[in-house]
Amino acid sequence: MAGDLIWLAAVSLLSACQQCHFAWLVGRSRLKHKIMPPAVSGPPEFERTFRAQQNCVEFYPIFVVTLWIAGWFFNQEIAAIGGLIYMFARHKYFHGYAESVKGRLTGFYLNLVVLMFLIALGTTGIVNSFLDEYLDFNIGKKLRKLI
Amino acid sequence: MAGDLIWLAAVSLLSACQQCHFAWLVGRSRLKHKIMPPAVSGPPEFERTFRAQQNCVEFYPIFVVTLWIAGWFFNQEIAAIGGLIYMFARHKYFHGYAESVKGRLTGFYLNLVVLMFLIALGTTGIVNSFLDEYLDFNIGKKLRKLI
Amino acid sequence: MAGDLIWLAAVSLLSACQQCHFAWLVGRSRLKHKIMPPAVSGPPEFERTFRAQQNCVEFYPIFVVTLWIAGWFFNQEIAAIGGLIYMFARHKYFHGYAESVKGRLTGFYLNLVVLMFLIALGTTGIVNSFLDEYLDFNIGKKLRKLI
Repeated sequence: MAGDLIWLAAVSLLSACQQCHFAWLVGRSRLKHKIMPPAVSGPPEFERTFRAQQNCVEFYPIFVVTLWIAGWFFNQEIAAIGGLIYMFARHKYFHGYAESVKGRLTGFYLNLVVLMFLIALGTTGIVNSFLDEYLDFNIGKKLRKLI
Repeated sequence: MAGDLIWLAAVSLLSACQQCHFAWLVGRSRLKHKIMPPAVSGPPEFERTFRAQQNCVEFYPIFVVTLWIAGWFFNQEIAAIGGLIYMFARHKYFHGYAESVKGRLTGFYLNLVVLMFLIALGTTGIVNSFLDEYLDFNIGKKLRKLI
Repeated sequence: MAGDLIWLAAVSLLSACQQCHFAWLVGRSRLKHKIMPPAVSGPPEFERTFRAQQNCVEFYPIFVVTLWIAGWFFNQEIAAIGGLIYMFARHKYFHGYAESVKGRLTGFYLNLVVLMFLIALGTTGIVNSFLDEYLDFNIGKKLRKLI
């Protein structure tokens, strides 16, 4: 089964590396502005960098859950591409936010769109699985028969 | 295999939506109290709302891990019902905390009870799997034989 | 399949308990220093304890993702041992940080080493799976043939 979900695993591992990278950038910002832990307040630039990472942290488990459910119950390749776009949006968000408060918005809205998209895929996949299992009604198969 | 764990997937996706909803409520509280990011301090009502979401964020990965292990190694349906009760408790916790510091307690204790329950289920399931695999001793089967 | 990944599940459940334990220690520190939620600032000892837990929370989903990918795509037993060392490092980190700012460093660097190790295992496993699936080239099998 491992091989079947390899694209999801690859995107998950990449995104875990991205999260480590964000944490490392916060550490570098600490050094630059001479803010020793456990302090989390300081000049605006440091606070923006810190909040950017915190927001990425907050959404990371939500992202992983929706990525896997979308990939598992709907389509692995589409979900993996969604995951890559999400990572790109997080990159934009983090670096935009570190520069200015407004700079976070492009990445933020793209993140939201991708998350909604993954949730929609996952919901479709789960509803289809329920119909298939409990009512023996598989939309995917019906569609394929029609074509 | 996807179909086998569909209830866990459905509850996970619902809980991911709930987490997004909490994040959105914090954003709305920011607008109401005019607190621009990256600030996280302000009037008590905003700070309570923010901490309520932060606490939900902290426990979300713990919840997902225990939900899946309990469902996978013990019983999917029982774990899924536990997951729904956990979501209800988080709802109580978040809205109770946003209203007053004491208001969080009911939801908080219910959360704890459900988490302990899921951990107990998961532990039982894992111990049973270990006994089954390494000592060829399956408690579930023994019990069924006795009855 | 559940039985195949039982060591990963056991380590994940243990680490979820550890996360709950850290959250409980923060609660106890709140009582000791009389810091009522939603406040998160106070005497240095409390702030260090709180930041220690926050850092554990930030890295927990990253840890779970890398643990499972390393265990699933490379070797379950090695990944599980890595996971136990990570938990030990988190223990050192949390209690070291609660005592002094410098006290966190030993645990922190050990954490980093284990995370890098799990990421390296996961990457090797995924690359091997891709080669196997798309080029029919399995390094593991080739190595075993050579020996």
